[in-house]
Amino acid sequence: MTDEVLASWNDGPAKQAIVAFVEAVTTAGSAFVAPADRIAAFDNDGTLWVEQPAPPQFDFIFGTWAKEVEADPSLATKQPYKALIDKDPEFFEGIATQDPTVVATLEEAIARSWKGTTPDEFDAEVREWAATAKQPSLKVGYTDLVYQPMLELFDLLRANEFRIFVCSGGGRDFMRVIAEDLWGIYKEDVIGSAAGYRYTDGKLLRTAEILGGLALGPGKPEHIFAQTGRLPVFAGGNADVDIEMLESARFALLVNHDDADREFAYTKAAERSLTEARERGWTVVSMKNDWKTVFAKEITP
Amino acid sequence: MTDEVLASWNDGPAKQAIVAFVEAVTTAGSAFVAPADRIAAFDNDGTLWVEQPAPPQFDFIFGTWAKEVEADPSLATKQPYKALIDKDPEFFEGIATQDPTVVATLEEAIARSWKGTTPDEFDAEVREWAATAKQPSLKVGYTDLVYQPMLELFDLLRANEFRIFVCSGGGRDFMRVIAEDLWGIYKEDVIGSAAGYRYTDGKLLRTAEILGGLALGPGKPEHIFAQTGRLPVFAGGNADVDIEMLESARFALLVNHDDADREFAYTKAAERSLTEARERGWTVVSMKNDWKTVFAKEITP
Repeated sequence: MTDEVLASWNDGPAKQAIVAFVEAVTTAGSAFVAPADRIAAFDNDGTLWVEQPAPPQFDFIFGTWAKEVEADPSLATKQPYKALIDKDPEFFEGIATQDPTVVATLEEAIARSWKGTTPDEFDAEVREWAATAKQPSLKVGYTDLVYQPMLELFDLLRANEFRIFVCSGGGRDFMRVIAEDLWGIYKEDVIGSAAGYRYTDGKLLRTAEILGGLALGPGKPEHIFAQTGRLPVFAGGNADVDIEMLESARFALLVNHDDADREFAYTKAAERSLTEARERGWTVVSMKNDWKTVFAKEITP
Repeated sequence: MTDEVLASWNDGPAKQAIVAFVEAVTTAGSAFVAPADRIAAFDNDGTLWVEQPAPPQFDFIFGTWAKEVEADPSLATKQPYKALIDKDPEFFEGIATQDPTVVATLEEAIARSWKGTTPDEFDAEVREWAATAKQPSLKVGYTDLVYQPMLELFDLLRANEFRIFVCSGGGRDFMRVIAEDLWGIYKEDVIGSAAGYRYTDGKLLRTAEILGGLALGPGKPEHIFAQTGRLPVFAGGNADVDIEMLESARFALLVNHDDADREFAYTKAAERSLTEARERGWTVVSMKNDWKTVFAKEITP
């Protein structure tokens, strides 16, 4: 049954480690985990879909900010608009490495941009983006760039009574719009950085506040615990900002982007996590060697 | 099938309204609600279990504070310890009516008392309390005082692909300890007022911060949306602090405590919700007339 479910995985060490762990925690014995405790948590960008040239949500955000500058050209001299227009390398480097300071500045600007929006308005903007945006080098929609082997891993875990959560530093409400279609995960199982909402006159309106901090680094186990009341048994990530989530789990999977032919090859912002994986015996997934197929949809690179 | 599930409900207007609504939203037609949207949210104290003489969590909290005063008698002159020791009527009135100011003072003191606790430590304290505490007039454990008809309502909703959440002004982490045993609800489906947690050196430690405000009044739809990404289709409550949650739902159920013989008869802190129910056509449950059985366990009053 496992082999059928993990059809896109080569029969290498990563697949073997996953299968052995799932069997151990679901079989009576010293490693057994009660079904109630079977929580799995996965990062999104670079773990479940492409994060090059930048996490896809930035494409959505920058599109909105470009329209804002068009409507009010005086913004062009202000941050983060100026950095965008100037293509400031330090700023983009900070995004690529998910530098907490750059991400925080962005999150604040994001909070301001969408302050006062209703959930329905925000949903419509994300849906419009998802239907039209294209990843610049692969030239297909971002939602076509979900990793097929990870969807199969979800199926394996579900079949073994795991409950699957996505926990990304990216926007919770952004991911929730696409979660049900992309991953078969209900909105309530999507955890991420999030704005507050105020309920007034029968309506929810987004505030500029960031609720409980960013879901990056230590913020990941914090957000996972707040949402689920547990720490994960199984966790998957691909970058340094996932280290705390991975170390908080019994089984840690680290996706290594080493496939320049079918996807991208880079270790930037993942160097420390690769070292930790070696030292702690985490399971590293080589996209090149462990995956027969990369994308859920057929892509011609 | 419905009649079998709602075995403790008399065949009166409340049961009929529930059954008609569930049928309408799950049958093709203008009232149909897609399964993904089928979120139900219920208050806890007074809706799922007894809240007299005070919401049970206060028994837990006051027990802890009594031990703190024993260990450090100088606390006896400080609030809220002083109010407890003096049995200050205004303070207890504020608790009974869930007066937001009193509740906020309490929540702050709670936050201070448990600051630095790990989830495991807090769990153990709540488990110890649940195993030993008794409701003073009924003289049984609080966990024996769950309403059987509401558990049957959960079964009916689950059978119709609803996902059930508890949303209480009470402590999220307190309820999560008992949620799986009492309601068959996973911790992640319990929403409530909650402290922050900081992840440091591989451990989660509780902070003194209250995350996203109290889950009372407008705080209920705010917390429900933050946790689930939706507003409820079906909501159940019993008090004025539930009004915003009830009005945010398509179907609102208000439990009226009018059964002095089997439970308690009171409308304090529910007057406004009873008026709203009349004006908006919410379904009012008369515990006396609509319920054949009150408690899930046999209780001799």
